[in-house]
Amino acid sequence: MITVRDKVRFVETDMMGVVHHANYLRWFEMGRVAYLRACGISLGELMEAGVIFPITEVNAKYKNSCTFDDDFEVQVKMSAFNKAKMEFRYKVIRLRDGAVAVEGHTRNVFTDKNGHIVRLDPIWFEKIQKVYMAEKSAEE
Amino acid sequence: MITVRDKVRFVETDMMGVVHHANYLRWFEMGRVAYLRACGISLGELMEAGVIFPITEVNAKYKNSCTFDDDFEVQVKMSAFNKAKMEFRYKVIRLRDGAVAVEGHTRNVFTDKNGHIVRLDPIWFEKIQKVYMAEKSAEE
Amino acid sequence: MITVRDKVRFVETDMMGVVHHANYLRWFEMGRVAYLRACGISLGELMEAGVIFPITEVNAKYKNSCTFDDDFEVQVKMSAFNKAKMEFRYKVIRLRDGAVAVEGHTRNVFTDKNGHIVRLDPIWFEKIQKVYMAEKSAEE
Amino acid sequence: MITVRDKVRFVETDMMGVVHHANYLRWFEMGRVAYLRACGISLGELMEAGVIFPITEVNAKYKNSCTFDDDFEVQVKMSAFNKAKMEFRYKVIRLRDGAVAVEGHTRNVFTDKNGHIVRLDPIWFEKIQKVYMAEKSAEE
Repeated sequence: MITVRDKVRFVETDMMGVVHHANYLRWFEMGRVAYLRACGISLGELMEAGVIFPITEVNAKYKNSCTFDDDFEVQVKMSAFNKAKMEFRYKVIRLRDGAVAVEGHTRNVFTDKNGHIVRLDPIWFEKIQKVYMAEKSAEE
Repeated sequence: MITVRDKVRFVETDMMGVVHHANYLRWFEMGRVAYLRACGISLGELMEAGVIFPITEVNAKYKNSCTFDDDFEVQVKMSAFNKAKMEFRYKVIRLRDGAVAVEGHTRNVFTDKNGHIVRLDPIWFEKIQKVYMAEKSAEE
Repeated sequence: MITVRDKVRFVETDMMGVVHHANYLRWFEMGRVAYLRACGISLGELMEAGVIFPITEVNAKYKNSCTFDDDFEVQVKMSAFNKAKMEFRYKVIRLRDGAVAVEGHTRNVFTDKNGHIVRLDPIWFEKIQKVYMAEKSAEE
Repeated sequence: MITVRDKVRFVETDMMGVVHHANYLRWFEMGRVAYLRACGISLGELMEAGVIFPITEVNAKYKNSCTFDDDFEVQVKMSAFNKAKMEFRYKVIRLRDGAVAVEGHTRNVFTDKNGHIVRLDPIWFEKIQKVYMAEKSAEE
């Protein structure tokens, strides 16, 4: 599991006084980027190599609201991976009380710059696979 | 079905050159607001009356990317409704070719300002119920 | 003067119950894009031709708040233009009472994809110049 | 001077491949919040006491672009302060090379929940004044 921590920004609140629900997807993304960084993958490099990784599905279940200035932690696990797609599971923890704020998952594919599905090159695949496998065996 | 149309803003794109996936949730919301407006419900009034309507679940499936300056239409149907919750289904249509960009659904509950679940007051319930029932019978 | 109209989105509010101040810059941008569209310029085309137009300065003075669901109009005039830069002036009008919500201006330059300053090609320059000159002479 | 550090989020980029200019205002805000926190002021508390602090003017000069995954530092100084208003100056530093990305300033007033100008209560005023004065004398 990879984690990132941050603090709720004022701009992330809405007139209901809580974090707007769409912002949690931005935090999932921060977690996803951190996961890949931990694999030794920079998304910038991937894009320079012509590989795009569009999200094809996202799901979020909202349990407890985060409010302005809350410290939070995004916990990320990879739940499926092959040369054609990645799936991640996320939990956002509200640190003041440890409550789960949001749980969710995303799926993304790999494409070239014209949006055609591609299979991930071994150079990238192996880096991710190594971390994914280590995580899976740690769970068993 | 209620529809709203708008145009992709520059700021809604990301460095992949397409609309960032989290922005579609903002468009779902525009559709949801329009649906309730068509019921004669102003969310501002609802909030002044102390009724909050937090999202508890969102799901989105991304099919085709919208890009900068694309005209799009959000199509909204209510898929479940009672005094405790509302569920909506959405399609975002990319108008240049009629392609479905994104499909999704949301669920929300009604709460007071302290986050406690409440049952929607008849004054609001009946307005929404009328439109929901009309839509359902039109589909049968 | 070019105008665009839109409606305040729920997500554009913050916990103070009004539109977050950074969002007006997004509306300025909608106005700027509309101005250039009225000149026959698509920013997408410009970018495909390798011309980038980064903002180098922005200023905004906030007079009256817009709130959720407010209809607003962005009024845009070009205040300076040559082959190296564009300057625009903006007013955001809150339509329910005609109050000026925000006034501001932006400056941008033209660069290539590596960020080096370029001079705008005559093919684009003349289209913009024509509208700019017509607007200036209408004001005299 | 108060500083905060963060990392550019993917969602903060636009199709020009750099951070969208409106996002720097969100970072200024993070700096402003941190400054007040360093004074012992929580904006949440201020709002609970009925004090709102709307931005009345913002200015930003963009020097060098930040890109995805860049580490950055926001440097904040208070440049004017009395019971009616606060002014801050900001620099955003791109940490990979120390370049100034953006410089700017903001002004805000204090109002009650109806938007009427109020004078800041001594309980808050003195906390801020103490830090402001210490900073000023350190500069002389």
